[in-house]
Order: sequence, then structure tokens, then C-alpha cells
Amino acid sequence: MFGSTFGHLFRLTTFGESHGVALGGVIDGCPSGIMLDENIIQTELDLRRPGTSLASTTRNEADRVEILSGVFNGMTMGTPIAFMVRNKDHKSDAYDNLKEIFRPGHADYTYTAKYHYRDHRGGGRSSGRETLSRVAGGAVAQAFLNTHDIKLQAYTVELGGIVAERIDISRSFERPYFSPDPNVLVKWNDLVTKTRGEGDSLGGVVEIVAKNVPPGLGEPVFAKLDAIIAAAIMSVGAVKGVEIGSGFAAARMKGSEHNDPITKDGFQGNNSGGILGGISSGQDIVVRAAIKPIPSISKEQETITRNGVKTSLKIEGRHDISAIPRIVPVLKAMLALSLADALLMQKRMSEI
Amino acid sequence: MFGSTFGHLFRLTTFGESHGVALGGVIDGCPSGIMLDENIIQTELDLRRPGTSLASTTRNEADRVEILSGVFNGMTMGTPIAFMVRNKDHKSDAYDNLKEIFRPGHADYTYTAKYHYRDHRGGGRSSGRETLSRVAGGAVAQAFLNTHDIKLQAYTVELGGIVAERIDISRSFERPYFSPDPNVLVKWNDLVTKTRGEGDSLGGVVEIVAKNVPPGLGEPVFAKLDAIIAAAIMSVGAVKGVEIGSGFAAARMKGSEHNDPITKDGFQGNNSGGILGGISSGQDIVVRAAIKPIPSISKEQETITRNGVKTSLKIEGRHDISAIPRIVPVLKAMLALSLADALLMQKRMSEI
Amino acid sequence: MFGSTFGHLFRLTTFGESHGVALGGVIDGCPSGIMLDENIIQTELDLRRPGTSLASTTRNEADRVEILSGVFNGMTMGTPIAFMVRNKDHKSDAYDNLKEIFRPGHADYTYTAKYHYRDHRGGGRSSGRETLSRVAGGAVAQAFLNTHDIKLQAYTVELGGIVAERIDISRSFERPYFSPDPNVLVKWNDLVTKTRGEGDSLGGVVEIVAKNVPPGLGEPVFAKLDAIIAAAIMSVGAVKGVEIGSGFAAARMKGSEHNDPITKDGFQGNNSGGILGGISSGQDIVVRAAIKPIPSISKEQETITRNGVKTSLKIEGRHDISAIPRIVPVLKAMLALSLADALLMQKRMSEI
Amino acid sequence: MFGSTFGHLFRLTTFGESHGVALGGVIDGCPSGIMLDENIIQTELDLRRPGTSLASTTRNEADRVEILSGVFNGMTMGTPIAFMVRNKDHKSDAYDNLKEIFRPGHADYTYTAKYHYRDHRGGGRSSGRETLSRVAGGAVAQAFLNTHDIKLQAYTVELGGIVAERIDISRSFERPYFSPDPNVLVKWNDLVTKTRGEGDSLGGVVEIVAKNVPPGLGEPVFAKLDAIIAAAIMSVGAVKGVEIGSGFAAARMKGSEHNDPITKDGFQGNNSGGILGGISSGQDIVVRAAIKPIPSISKEQETITRNGVKTSLKIEGRHDISAIPRIVPVLKAMLALSLADALLMQKRMSEI
Repeated sequence: MFGSTFGHLFRLTTFGESHGVALGGVIDGCPSGIMLDENIIQTELDLRRPGTSLASTTRNEADRVEILSGVFNGMTMGTPIAFMVRNKDHKSDAYDNLKEIFRPGHADYTYTAKYHYRDHRGGGRSSGRETLSRVAGGAVAQAFLNTHDIKLQAYTVELGGIVAERIDISRSFERPYFSPDPNVLVKWNDLVTKTRGEGDSLGGVVEIVAKNVPPGLGEPVFAKLDAIIAAAIMSVGAVKGVEIGSGFAAARMKGSEHNDPITKDGFQGNNSGGILGGISSGQDIVVRAAIKPIPSISKEQETITRNGVKTSLKIEGRHDISAIPRIVPVLKAMLALSLADALLMQKRMSEI
Repeated sequence: MFGSTFGHLFRLTTFGESHGVALGGVIDGCPSGIMLDENIIQTELDLRRPGTSLASTTRNEADRVEILSGVFNGMTMGTPIAFMVRNKDHKSDAYDNLKEIFRPGHADYTYTAKYHYRDHRGGGRSSGRETLSRVAGGAVAQAFLNTHDIKLQAYTVELGGIVAERIDISRSFERPYFSPDPNVLVKWNDLVTKTRGEGDSLGGVVEIVAKNVPPGLGEPVFAKLDAIIAAAIMSVGAVKGVEIGSGFAAARMKGSEHNDPITKDGFQGNNSGGILGGISSGQDIVVRAAIKPIPSISKEQETITRNGVKTSLKIEGRHDISAIPRIVPVLKAMLALSLADALLMQKRMSEI
Repeated sequence: MFGSTFGHLFRLTTFGESHGVALGGVIDGCPSGIMLDENIIQTELDLRRPGTSLASTTRNEADRVEILSGVFNGMTMGTPIAFMVRNKDHKSDAYDNLKEIFRPGHADYTYTAKYHYRDHRGGGRSSGRETLSRVAGGAVAQAFLNTHDIKLQAYTVELGGIVAERIDISRSFERPYFSPDPNVLVKWNDLVTKTRGEGDSLGGVVEIVAKNVPPGLGEPVFAKLDAIIAAAIMSVGAVKGVEIGSGFAAARMKGSEHNDPITKDGFQGNNSGGILGGISSGQDIVVRAAIKPIPSISKEQETITRNGVKTSLKIEGRHDISAIPRIVPVLKAMLALSLADALLMQKRMSEI
Repeated sequence: MFGSTFGHLFRLTTFGESHGVALGGVIDGCPSGIMLDENIIQTELDLRRPGTSLASTTRNEADRVEILSGVFNGMTMGTPIAFMVRNKDHKSDAYDNLKEIFRPGHADYTYTAKYHYRDHRGGGRSSGRETLSRVAGGAVAQAFLNTHDIKLQAYTVELGGIVAERIDISRSFERPYFSPDPNVLVKWNDLVTKTRGEGDSLGGVVEIVAKNVPPGLGEPVFAKLDAIIAAAIMSVGAVKGVEIGSGFAAARMKGSEHNDPITKDGFQGNNSGGILGGISSGQDIVVRAAIKPIPSISKEQETITRNGVKTSLKIEGRHDISAIPRIVPVLKAMLALSLADALLMQKRMSEI
């Protein structure tokens, strides 16, 4: 993991600023012979597109991905797979009043402190749009995982403090907010409408699950599977916490309650979330991410200019009132990339 | 981050099994001219030694560290710093009845699935004792951070569900459990005694803070500071969750509540936990880790043997009833290593 | 260094097959504030274009580079710089008779052994065309080196065994073969014409020099500057040897002859080639690469088909009779990338 | 490859200064189940010990290696293998007159320029003694290669310009200088005696061969096998050039002469040195290293002090008059490490 590259053996390097020429990435290390084409990647990207939830705005983005290398006759060749999406629809003037002001909650201040040179248009590399490259890369990772029958699901279990029940997970991707619970939608919509009216924003919790993961993935002591996953998830903007299995609830359990018993029929219970001692156990891997409320709010805020003068800020322009649901496919993609990397690392452990 | 190495520029490689000849590590990348000697490392190691809390057992370990290279006349030379601790006090026969049995909650099953060869004595590399190398490495990292006036604190904010108040953090290291709250000790002791009597175990939450961290540390998009820290913390055995700043509480806040306002006097509030957009902001970095209850419990448990035969297990031998407080210096060490690495990475970003 | 990525801190990841959609790369780690635009990269690419020497063929390639990210207003932003060149002019049918045959001296056999899936069209990733990405990446590296006044030169000192004198190095880039010697051109042209008539090919030796390199670059013990450079140079197809300073001639010298004396006016002599103990000394860095003769020859050759049947091969199509001069800018690019990486690594060594 | 670590998947990290407490290393990534014990490593180390050739001095070193981790019951466990050798026999006072003087040809100047802090005793990390860690690490690599029947040989083909014939390679390790030619010994001894009398030193050429290497090792485009090997070999002190197969001689051949024909019985000829397109072909891998003459000579030399004052230097103390033969096992070790790494990288390329 380094700067713009994620992974050791299945490696994704991303590039692109939200208002530059294009966004994209390169996957190096994907084995040959895996079915892959632009449609497979496009399908994942389309999940990101707003319009399906009241929480999202209506930017018409229609991002079309183009594969530049690494694929021939619908199969990967084992060579680097480069992909890109050209930026079309953006209104950079809507952001010009922000050039001299630090937006609270945003990375403006930290980016300036780091780079001494900030592209003020839409957040540069700290923008949500950069996640496009992650989702595309994750699609390639999932194509690889499919060949091992490893399946991923991602859905929202909490929005603005309102909890969803895990009633029907398999069709989460068809519902607004990627909800596993048809019954909670009314409450979520009401809260969203109210919050939008107030010019405020909401956070939530997203759960990502990987099924059919073979045991043995993860490299002690530092590249444990849960450590890799934690880094992957935490690297997504707006994430402020990550937990595996029982997570923070485990902190309040007794050992007799938390241990998952092993019987001849397998494990009974999954408080471990599919990872023991940092290595996959064969059970479902269960991860949850805490999503903070989006910093860009219409509500007026106190702040300062680059010269330290007190001012107030009222952000115009189009923006979502929650990182959910856009963030859901991004988190799924990061879990896919983590598992693809761990899978490749495990394969080289085969016997002498 | 890879297998037994943590870090990109300030790199710690650890080695050693709890019942092998020795444990130790090599730090590569530590700059020259930093004051370092065995006492500095020993001081951190001694914090791990049980005896100061009712939750810990009374193994007499007296681990003495020896520096093998990289230091001359009490100063680092810029060359790799190797250190080791010889294993003296262990009773491996106490573990022999475990050779054929998978201990619930332990990494036995996953380690066997991975390596096809398991050292049954005391957990091998998945044992708590391996953390010794991390703590020693963290001591070197802290020596480097000291030269930048970066100070770390780590203390227990929850044990078995009972919350401590952050009354007196600076003297946490003098109290049992590394408690920041003298008033909670009675309740914690009672709970621990009761739990030990039941042959059960407890979990908790540990908070680690870094003060005076310069802004600008962290490398978007994948090596963000919070991602590096999350991986570092999650890589410690028994950790099931990690959060920054408000963490999971942020998921339930509104944007107007969560944003830390910026005034000419600096930030007001620290829900971000010192990290915005994955880069340090200059505020205190605040991290919390969820610690699961220790799997080894005296209470009888159902399990199976390596051949899949149902059996029951009652673990004898000496063991703690919580990873707290031993785990506290380990988590502090991991934050130190993360920051040392980020600091070195930022230094190379200096202007052209 | 890993697969398709070169470098630790100044990292180039390349992609693209010679007959795929596009070739390109991503540079991650280039500092911000460096002047860069498409012209700067295009200038280097144009040096690769054949037509200036009798040794090269007349493929009309006019590769136009497009920068996709990382640059704003003619300056690097510190974010990944992605670039691409679309493949236009190719005649893949000319290569179809090669689908089932292993071409002697080519990587066909080894690529099939490795990937079990070979793109037969023009060599895939083993083709000379892949070097385009290296040259473009090298141009970015050189833009960075320019800010430190580090200048590179590359020229041919031997072709087909005929040695050139280092008479006028600074204008090598204007002459055919990148010759530093106007007087040798007649002899080289004659040899080339003769060799082409025979349907054969030639090898040679290329020298690359870096001037004004600050002392102190290189990281003992394994990332020594000469080791990094050796890997960089040897990774270019057709290179079978690399030497620094006196190189293989040093093997035949006495110590008293080889040592470069140090006086108060600096070093006298440069047998070390600017690198001592793996670290730059401040003197010119002098590297030479041995270029083997191009394997593709019109002359008929004995070989076998994929099924092991003896056959003979007469290669049609357009091809050069030497990797020189095309390879010269590629070698220069690799030295530039090595130095850019070493420079960034040294910058982080600044004192505490 | 990074600083004190070599390799990507089979990784050796070394530590130790020649006059510090100990030298050693850690191998991370060695698979489990390989037979390994201290004798196996000691055997390789003993090859380094002088006394068998007139070219070497008579330091009585008797370096005993101790394995600290990673091995149990004579088998590797898959966990990091740490080893060390304590420094016993040294006379640091013999080096004290060197504290203020830059020794010509040595890394004194460059090390000071880099670290601003130099351990003057015996060269620190730039000393030949540091190679002990490489040889020990190489022994572990060879134990792994043995399980695939890959065998290495290393021998001196030239000393002081006098060429040896490859008459009896298999018993090179029994002869002085690791000579493959019993007939050249008289000439070499005479030259060495003469040179020692003059207080001067000699260089030479060493050839290293790997037999039975499976085809397919090496990762285009930057981690090609020849690139990895070139870096490994060049990283050894005193090496100024490296070539594969025909090497620099290929630069003077025609394509028809250099191409190795492929028949149904395999390749005919091995000008490629076992590597084509950067990937192993299955033929013997043949590498040669150019060794410069040792810089430390008794003969008086002109130089300057740290303050730039002109002075002359006559080096007392014990030193060899050539890096050969000590360097031979070191080069063999580096080839072993390269192949072990490439082998592990190839194993993960197994099919989906």
C-alpha cells in the first residue's frame, strides 16, 4: 500500500482529479484467463450513479469506462489492465468562490498544508469522484474472485441513526440506499427530506460481507487479513471507523459469549466475522464501516479564508446530503481488492 | 506492509516464536543522530510486564532486550537497528494437551489451514508474546518522534462495559489497567475478580492519542494516515474494531454537529480526531481500539480435535483474563510506528 | 521494483500491448510544482521515432501523447500523472504466420511457458513498442531532475564492433545512431547497409552519463545506486550487460591504477563512474549497456512450432536491424527514473 | 528491494556493522517444511573464511551462526527466520589513523556525504564483513531451491587479467580462488605473490551458474529475472559490471550468430544465458560479475583529510589483495536469493 497504489500482488494504481481530463487506474497482477470486458466494469460503475435515492443529487454523469490494455478477446492476459473514464459533466465555476476559503470538514486545509499547491476545483484527489477508479478496480478484482466463487454483498444497516433489519440482503442492490430492509425506506426518506430542508447532512453504517472465502488468507503478523481490510475501508473518504464481526460490541462481551464454538459441523456463530488470528476461517467475512456525515452543507458555517480572516460560508452547487448510498459500491470494491490480494498471496504459499 | 514487516520508510521487521530461541526485530530506515540505548527500549517493554493489574497473571518474564546493531555511543547511525530478547521462562508441557485440539477463538484452526504445520506451543506467532517485538520497535519509533516533540498517550476507557472518565490521562501509565480514572478502579477490580472466579474473560476499549503532530502527514489516496493507523491497530491480536475521532458516533451525527469549525484561533472541536481527508490537521490524533475478550478461558468449552471428533476443553496453565492492560503499550507502539513512517514520508515531499 | 512498476518513491507503472488500444503509464510520487506539459514528453518520444538512421525502418508512427491527470496550468500537482498514446498504425496480419511458431531469440517460448496464453501480435509486452511508456515516464523524471540541474546524455559508443570516439557528445542527439563521433558514421552506415542486405542484425554498446548528481544518493546495502541503475538498464529488452565506470576493464586493473585519487580540488579520474560503495560521489555517473543484436532477422532460421515440429522461419514484415538507435532514449529514460527515485529517497534522509 | 531488504516475496533484511555487537539477518517468506539448521548455514559461511588462498589474509574469524527463530525440529515453519553471528575478533585500533582521512576508492567520502556521521571502524556497513549476512541468507535460499533441484555453482574465470578454462567446474569449491582450472593456479599464485610484494591489489571476473531452473521465472516489464539478478549482483561491494550469457560479447555478434536455435531436442547454444525477454527459458542461467581491485593497498597513496588538507596514506593492518575469492560465495548467495524470490513470485501465477 503506497500513495496511489493498493495491494501487494493484485495491485491497483489510480489516477485522476475530479475536474481533470480523466480518471482511471491500472491493475497489475491480475492473473490471465479471467473473463473481463467493459460491460462488467460499467455495471459496477453504474451502481455509483446517483438518481436512485433521495439522498443523492441529480448530476448526469454517464461515466463510460474504456479499457486501454490487458484484455484480449474478452479475457485478461495477465498484463496490466488500464482503464479510464473521461470527465465530461462538471461546473467548475460553481466552485470558484471556494478558492480562498477553507471548507469546514473538508481536506482543504490539510491538502494545502501538505502540497503547498491545491487544485481548488471540486476537491481534486480528495473528491468523491476519485472513488470511480476504486469501483472500476474493484470490478476487476471481483471478476477474479468469481473464479473462486467468492461473492460479495454490501448494504446500509444504519442511516442517520435509524437501524435497518437484515431482512432481504440479496436484493439490497435494487433498493434505494442499498437497503436490506424494505420497511425502513419510509423512515429513511422522511429523515432525508427533513435534513435536506434544513441544509444539513447525515451519516450511517454500511455492512460488507464476503461469502465462500477459503480459510487461510492473510499474512501474519502485519498483513493480517483484518488489517488489510481495515486499511482498505478506512482509506475511503468519509469513513471514521471499521469493525469486524462483533466489532465494538465484542468489547462488552465475555469470552464465553464471544468465542464461536467449533463442532464437527463447523463453526457455530460468527462473532469473529470470519477472521481469527488475522487469517480467514472460511466463515463469512463481515465488516462494518462508520460513515460520517458529508461536510458540504448548505447551512451557513463559520470559517476562515486562506489569510486567516474570519468569514462565513454558504455552499451552493450540487451535493449529496449523505455519502450513502454512493459509498456502498466503493466499500464493496475495497473489500474485493483486499481479498483478491490476499488470495494471490496465499496461492504462492503452496507446498514445496 | 507485508507479512512480518510494517512500514514503508520507517520499517520494522519482527521475528520470533513465543517458545523459540528468541524474539526480536530489525528497524530499517531510522534516521541517524537519534538518542537510543537499551534502557529506552527496556522501559517500554517493562510496561508490558504483568503484575500491576489483577487482570494479569504472574509470569516472571523479566525480558531483557539487547541491541545488536545500528547504535554507537548512544546514537543511531542510520543503519538497521536489530534487537532481541531471549526466551527464558516458559512451560511448554502445560500446552501439550492442546496439540491435537483446536482452541475456540484462537488461531489454531486458521494457522493449520494456512501453514499445514503448526507449532502448538503457546501459539507461535499468534501469541501475545510476539507483541514484544512491536513494543520494542515502537520504542525506537517514539525516540524518533521525540525529536519532533510528538508525544503519545494510551489508556483504557472501557473494561467489560464499564466506562472510565478521562479525568487524569497523564498519569494513566502509573495506574492499574492504564486507567485515566482513579475512581473506576474499584469497579474494574470487582468485575475482574468475579470474572476470574467464573473462569471467563473480558474485553474493553483503549484510546491512543498523539499530540503535536504536524499537519500534512499521510499519503492519499491509499496510504492515508487513518488507513495506515487502522491497519497498524487492527494487526494487533484481539482487536476487532478501530475508530478515529468520533468514530462510530459520527455515523449518528448531523453534518452541522460533526464538522469542526475553523476560526482564526484554530479548530474548535475535534470530531475529526486530527485527521481530515486522510491527512493530519495538526490537532490531536485520537484513535480507539475495540478489544475482544481473551479466548483462553478456564471455563469448559465444546470443540473438536484435529480429526473432527467432538471433545470438550478445559484450559489449564497461566493466562490473563483480558488483553487489557498488556495490549495498551502495544497499541501505543503501533501508533508510534505509523507516525514515524508518515513523518519520514512527508519529509521527502519537501520542495523542489 | 515489481512487475509493471519501477521505483520506490518516484514510481512509474506502465501498461499497454503494442497492438492493444493504447500504451501509457502512471507516475506516482512526482513532487508538485514542476513544469510539465505534453510537449515536454512528446519531445522525448519523438527521439524514438525511426527515420533518422539507416538502421531503423520507416514505420510512420507519430505517437501523440496525452496527459490525463496530475498536471494543472503547466505544473505538476503532486498527484499521479497518467499519460497515454493510442495505437494507430499497425499491421497485425503481417504477424499471423507467427502464431504457431517460436521465433528464435524472442520471448515467445518464455512468455508461453509463463502465461499459458500469449498474445502473438507483435510481442505483446515484450515488444520494443512498450518502451514508449518508459520514455514518457523518463521525460517526467527528467523534468524533476532539471530542477536540480542534473543533466543526462546518452550516445552510442560501439555498433557492430566498430568503436566511436567521444569527440562531440553534446550533439549526439542530432546525429544518426546518436553518435558522439561524426567520423564514424560512414563506417557504421556501410556496415548497416551490408548487414541489411544479408538479412542479419547488429548489436552495440550505449553509454549514458548523468552530470551534476549530488553526492549521497543510493541506499546501502541493497538499494545501492549502482544496483538500482543496473536493474533499470537490464530491464530494457536487448540489454545483456551493464557496467559502471571502468566496468569490466576494472577487472584487469591493479588497485593503484583503478583508485581515483582525492585531492583538495576533488577527485582525479573517474574509474568509479561516479559511484563508490554504492553511493554517488558527485562525479559524473557513467554507465554502459551491452545491446545484443535484434533477434528478428530476414535470414532463414531453423526452429520448431508450438507442437514441437521442426520448421524453418523467414520473418517478413518491417523490422529494424539493430535496437540502436531506438534504445538510446530508452536507456536514458531508465537512468533518469533511477536518479529521480534515489533523489527522493535521499531527501527524506534530512536530519532530525 | 529497499535499503537493507532484498526481495519481494522471499525477503532478506540484513543488519550489523563489522565492529558492532553482531551481524545477522531475517528471512521473511521462506515456505514451511524446508530442511534447515545451523550446520547448513555454517557450511556456506565457512566458504568465506580466508586461509585457503594466498590472496586472502589470515584473520581467524570462526564466525558461528545462531538461528533465533523460524525453525523447529530441523524444518522451517513458514515464519521469519532470524540468524546472527557475534563479532569477536577485531582490532579497531589498527584503523584509528584512518578516522580523519578519506581512503581512496573506499566509501568513506560518500558515506560521510550521505549520513553526516560515519563509523570509521572498518567500513561499517560498507565493509566486506557485512556480506556474511548475505551468505547466510543465501544459504536459506539455497535450501529452498534444493527442493526444486535447482543447483548453483560459482567460480573465478579471471584473476588479474589471467583467464581460467572451464575444465572442472564441479570441484571449483575445493580449489584456491574457487578456480575451475587446476592448471591456472600456478600463474595466479605467482601474480598474487608479486602483487602483494608491490603492496597493490587485483580484480577479476566471477561466473555464477544456476542449473535446472524452470522456465517462466521473472516478471515483465521491470522485475525481469535478469534485472533482479543484475541488481542483486551489482549490490555486492567491488562489483562494477554484470553480464548475462554472452554479455558484452553479444554487442559484437550478428543476430544469426547470437540467436540460440530451437530444435525438437531443445535449445542449441546458450548465448541468452538462460534468460529471454527477461524470463527464464529452462537453460542454465549464466551470469558474470566484474570485480574491481580492492581499494585498500599498502602502497602509499595521495589523498586528503576531512578538512581538505593534502596528505598521503599508507594503510597498515590486515587486508586481502583481492575481493576474490571471498566474494565468490557472496555472489552465489545473491543469485540464490534472486531465484528464490522469482520462484515464489511464479508460484502465485498458477491458474484460476
